[in-house]
Amino acid sequence: MNRYDAPVREMRFVLHDVLNIESQLADCAGTPPQREVADAVLDEAARFASEVLAPLNAVGDAEGCMLDKADGSVRTPKGFRAAYAQFTESGWSGLTAPEAWGGQHLPEVLGAAVKEMIDSANLAWGTYPLLSHGATEALKHHGEEWQREVFLRRIVDGSWTGTMCLTEPHAGSDLGMLKARAVPDAEGTFRIHGTKIFITAGEHDFTDNIVHLVLARLPDAPAGVKGISMFIVPKFNVARDGTIGERNAVRCGALEHKMGLRGSSTCVMNFDGASGYLIGKANRGLAAMFTMMNSARLAVGLQGLGLSERAFQNSLRYARERVQMRSLSGPRSPELPADPIIVHPDVRRMLLTQKALIEAGRVLVYDACLQLDLAERHPDPELRTLAEARTSLLTPIIKAFLTESAVECTYHALQIFGGHGYIAETGMEQLARDARITTIYEGTTQIQALDLLGRKVLANQGQELGRWLAEVETACAGASTDAVQAGFAEALRAAARLLGDGAARVSRQARDNAEEVGGAAYDFLMLASYVALGMAWLRMLAAAGEPSAHCDAADKHATADFFFARLMPRAAMHAACMGSGVRTLDVANAALSAGT
Amino acid sequence: MNRYDAPVREMRFVLHDVLNIESQLADCAGTPPQREVADAVLDEAARFASEVLAPLNAVGDAEGCMLDKADGSVRTPKGFRAAYAQFTESGWSGLTAPEAWGGQHLPEVLGAAVKEMIDSANLAWGTYPLLSHGATEALKHHGEEWQREVFLRRIVDGSWTGTMCLTEPHAGSDLGMLKARAVPDAEGTFRIHGTKIFITAGEHDFTDNIVHLVLARLPDAPAGVKGISMFIVPKFNVARDGTIGERNAVRCGALEHKMGLRGSSTCVMNFDGASGYLIGKANRGLAAMFTMMNSARLAVGLQGLGLSERAFQNSLRYARERVQMRSLSGPRSPELPADPIIVHPDVRRMLLTQKALIEAGRVLVYDACLQLDLAERHPDPELRTLAEARTSLLTPIIKAFLTESAVECTYHALQIFGGHGYIAETGMEQLARDARITTIYEGTTQIQALDLLGRKVLANQGQELGRWLAEVETACAGASTDAVQAGFAEALRAAARLLGDGAARVSRQARDNAEEVGGAAYDFLMLASYVALGMAWLRMLAAAGEPSAHCDAADKHATADFFFARLMPRAAMHAACMGSGVRTLDVANAALSAGT
Repeated sequence: MNRYDAPVREMRFVLHDVLNIESQLADCAGTPPQREVADAVLDEAARFASEVLAPLNAVGDAEGCMLDKADGSVRTPKGFRAAYAQFTESGWSGLTAPEAWGGQHLPEVLGAAVKEMIDSANLAWGTYPLLSHGATEALKHHGEEWQREVFLRRIVDGSWTGTMCLTEPHAGSDLGMLKARAVPDAEGTFRIHGTKIFITAGEHDFTDNIVHLVLARLPDAPAGVKGISMFIVPKFNVARDGTIGERNAVRCGALEHKMGLRGSSTCVMNFDGASGYLIGKANRGLAAMFTMMNSARLAVGLQGLGLSERAFQNSLRYARERVQMRSLSGPRSPELPADPIIVHPDVRRMLLTQKALIEAGRVLVYDACLQLDLAERHPDPELRTLAEARTSLLTPIIKAFLTESAVECTYHALQIFGGHGYIAETGMEQLARDARITTIYEGTTQIQALDLLGRKVLANQGQELGRWLAEVETACAGASTDAVQAGFAEALRAAARLLGDGAARVSRQARDNAEEVGGAAYDFLMLASYVALGMAWLRMLAAAGEPSAHCDAADKHATADFFFARLMPRAAMHAACMGSGVRTLDVANAALSAGT
Repeated sequence: MNRYDAPVREMRFVLHDVLNIESQLADCAGTPPQREVADAVLDEAARFASEVLAPLNAVGDAEGCMLDKADGSVRTPKGFRAAYAQFTESGWSGLTAPEAWGGQHLPEVLGAAVKEMIDSANLAWGTYPLLSHGATEALKHHGEEWQREVFLRRIVDGSWTGTMCLTEPHAGSDLGMLKARAVPDAEGTFRIHGTKIFITAGEHDFTDNIVHLVLARLPDAPAGVKGISMFIVPKFNVARDGTIGERNAVRCGALEHKMGLRGSSTCVMNFDGASGYLIGKANRGLAAMFTMMNSARLAVGLQGLGLSERAFQNSLRYARERVQMRSLSGPRSPELPADPIIVHPDVRRMLLTQKALIEAGRVLVYDACLQLDLAERHPDPELRTLAEARTSLLTPIIKAFLTESAVECTYHALQIFGGHGYIAETGMEQLARDARITTIYEGTTQIQALDLLGRKVLANQGQELGRWLAEVETACAGASTDAVQAGFAEALRAAARLLGDGAARVSRQARDNAEEVGGAAYDFLMLASYVALGMAWLRMLAAAGEPSAHCDAADKHATADFFFARLMPRAAMHAACMGSGVRTLDVANAALSAGT
C-alpha cells in the first residue's frame, strides 16, 4: 500500500538544470560526470530502490533485528541480507569511492541522489551501508597506507561494513566525557576497553567482518576532547598483511528497542580488551571523527529528505483517491459520492508544505554535496577553499532543517490519511516513527544550531555567511526584473536582512554574555534555513525558465508562490524570537527554578 | 523511569484562583463545589492516577489488547481490568453525572481536572471510561425515561461502558456517507446491519455489558446527514424492564495495529442484524451525536493537555539530572563532570515552550468546562445562553490546539532526552506515539478549524467572537496599568486585532469565493489559539498577584514573559499566512496538478 517511485525527473532537474553538475565538475579529477552516465545511474538506482528495497521496508519494521545472546550475533530482517548482496554485486558500495581503492569515483552529488532513493525506499536498510561511507572518509584522510589497503578496499567493495563507535551511556553530545580506554600492547597495537551505545549496524549478518572506528583514551591522555584517539577495531582481527585472524573481543551486548528504524540494529557494543590499530595521530581522534561526522551529517539530511519524499508521494496519492465531503464552493466531482480530499484547501496546504520543503531541500543538500566534490576534486585551490567553506556553513543547516522538515512532512502526510494513517497497514506511521531519530543522531538540532552560529558564523566573523548572503542578494536582484518573482525576491531579501542583522546583533551581545549565542542559535538556524530555501526556489525558477528543463514550469512557479506566501512568514517569526534575546531563557530566570 | 505526579497545586491555582469556581458556581443547581470537596477530590484522584494508573502505562503499550477470534472477546492489558474495578468502586465513573441516575453531580470543571490526571497517567486506560461520558450526555439529553433508567444508571455506576459507533471505512469526517442500516422489526425495535471501524473500547473485559450508540440509516431515510438516526445497541440485549437477554449480533471482527495508544482496544465492529432501540427522533441522529461529540472534543483536548504535562514533567526531571557539556559562559556546576543540560538556553526553550503551552492550555480547557457547567446548571437563562455560546466557540480551539500542542510538547520532551528518548525504556517515545492520534480522532484539526471559522464565527456574523475579543480588550486594558504587563497586553492586543480583522476580511471574501473559508480556517484557528493563550496568561498573572494564590508569582511572571517573547510571534505568522488568501491553495492552482 505504501509505495515509492523515485522522483527521477525531479532529480535530473536539480542535478542538470539547477546545479549543472556536468559543467561545474568538468575540470575536476576523476570520472567526468557525463549526463548519460548520471542518468543511467539514476535509473538503475531507482529500480533497485523501488523494486528491491521499498518492499522490505514494512517487513523490516515488523520483524526488527534479533540478537542471539549466546554468541552475540544479530539476525537482520528477512530479505535485508539478500538485498545487500545485490547492492554490492551491482557495485553501489563503491560508487563515490576513489578508483585507487576499487571505487567508481563518481561525484558525491550523484551519490546523494542514490542515497536519497535508498532512504526513501528503506531507511533502516540504508543505515547498514551508511556508516561505511563515513569510515571510507576517515580511512581516506587519516589512515596509513596499509590500513587503506587492508580495510578501505574491503569497505569499498562492500565485503565489510564500517561503524562509528562514539557514544557512551554518559557521553552523548559531550564526547569530552567519554571513558573508553586504549592500552598499548606488546605488538604495537592497542587493547580497547569500554562500552559504546547506540551503535548503528554494530552487529549484523550482511558481511563476514565489521570495521569499528572507535573513540577511546590512551593512558595519560589529557582530559576532555583533546585526549581522544581513534582506533580501528575489526570484529575479526586482521593482520597488517590482510590475513584474517580470530574473533576480536568486541561483542554486541544488547539491541535497543526503538520507536522506529526497527530494521536497523542499534547495538550496545562491549569492548573487552579488543585489539585495535590507532588511526591518525594520538589524541587527534576528534579531527578524524569530524571527517566522518560531516559526511554523516549530510547523509542524515538526505535521510530526512528521503522520508519526506516518500511521505509526500503517498499522501498525495491518497488525497487524490480518498473521497470525503464536498468542496465548499460546490461539488468538483459530481459523478462521485464525494470529492477527492485534495480539493480541500487545508489538505492542499499540507501537501504543498511538503512539496515546497522537499523540492527546495533537495537543491540545498545536493548543492552541499556538489561543493564537497569541488572542495576535494577541483584543481583550483582557491575554489576548493571556498567550496569547503560553503559546505561547512550549509552542513548544520541541512542536517537540522531537513530532519526537522521530515518530522513536519511525515506529520502532515499522516494527518492527510486521518485515522487510517495511525494504523500500521498504511505505512504512514512508520515513516513518522523513523523520522523521529533524524533530529537527534549525528548531533541534535541543538548541536547543529550551536555549530552553525558559534563555529561557522561567529568564529570567523561571519565571513562565509556574508559571502553567501551576497549571493542571495545577487539572486534577488536577478529575480527582481521578473514581475512575478519580484515579490519573492522582496520576501527573500527581507529574510536575508533579518539574518545578517541577527548575526551582527548576537555577535555584539555575545561579548557581554556568551549565553546569547545559545539563546539565539536555534532560531538563527531556522531563519537561515528559510533564507536557504528561498534562495533554492529562486534558483529553481531561473532553471525552470529553460524550455529543456526537466520540470513543469507552471508547477514550479505555483509551488514557489505557495512557499513565499505560506512558509516564508516563518522567517520573521524566528527573527522575532531570536530578537528577544536570552533573557527569557537564562538560567537565572525564575521559571523552571521551582519543582513541578 | 517515566513518572507522573499530578500537578495538584497548579490545578488548585486554576480552579480556585484563576477561575474561582466556588463563587462562579455558587448559584447553580446541584452539589455546591465547596473548596474542601474539590480539594479532596483532587487529592484522591491524584493518588489513583499516579499510584494505580501510571504504573500500567508502559505495560499497556507493550502488551496491547488481544482478540480471541473464536468468540470475539478482547483481553485488555494486565492490570487494566483491576484498575477499572477500583475506579468504579471509588465512584469515579459517576463523578459529574446527575444524582437522579446515581451520580455525584460535581461540576464538569472538576471532572476535567480528574480526566487530565487519568490521561497523564495512562491515556490508553482512560479511553475505556471516556466514551461512557459521551453516552451519558446523549442519554441524558435525548434518551427516553426508560432508556435512562435502564442504561444510564448502569453507565453512571460504571458497571457498563458506552461507545460511539460513527466511522465506517468510507465515511470518516464525512458522516453523510455512512451506510449502516437500521430495519424496524416486529417488536418495535430495530435490526442494525453494517460495519463500523475505529471503535474505541468497542470490546473489552472491563464490564459485563457494553452500550453501543450507533449511527445508522432507517429505510427510506433522506441521503446525507439528514438521514442519520442513533440507536442503542447493547452487547447483551436488555429488555425495557432491564432484564438482560441473549448475546446481541454485534461482534468485534478485528483490532487495529496502531502507532500508539496500544492499550486501548480499537475495534472493527460488525453489526449483523443486531437489535437496537432508537434514541431521540428518527433522522435526528446527528444532533444527538453532536451532544456526545462536543463533550468528547473537550475530553480529547484534555488528553492533549495530560500527555503534554507528563512529557514536561519527565523532560524537566531529566534536564536537571543529565549532565552534558558546560554552559557557554562557564561551568555552573563545577563540582560535576559537566553541567546539567537545563543550563543550556535551547533546552530551556524546549522546556518553557511546554510549560507555557500547558499552563495556559489548562486555563483554557478548564474554563470551557466551567462554561459547560454554567450553561447547564445556572438559574439565569441569559447567562446560560452566553456560557453555551462561549464553550461552543472555544471547543474547536481547545480540541485542535491542545492536541497540536501535545504533538509539539512530546516532540520537545523526547528531543531533550536525545537518543535515550528514542528508546522504549524511557517512556518518552510512547507519549509521542500516543499523542499522534489526538489531532485526528473526534474530528481532525482541519475539521475543528472549519467548525470554528465556518459555524462558530461566520455563521453568526462573528457575534460571539466579538464578545470574546471585547473581553480580551478589557483584560488588556487592565494589564496595561502594570509596567511589566503593559508589554504583554500590547502583544495580545495586536494579535487580537489581527484575529478580528482576519475574520472580517474572510467574511467579505467568502461572499465571492466560499473556498476562502477553507483557505483561512487552519491559520485562523491557530491565531485564535494564541490569542486565547495570551488571555489565559493575563488571567493567571492577575490571579498570581494575590498572596493566597496557589503559585509562585515570580515563576508565573517569568513563564508569561517567555510566552509573549517566544511563542506569541507565531500569531503574526499565522495572520500573514491567512492574509495571503486561498490563491496558493486553490484547486485550479498549477501545483499538485501533475503526477509526481
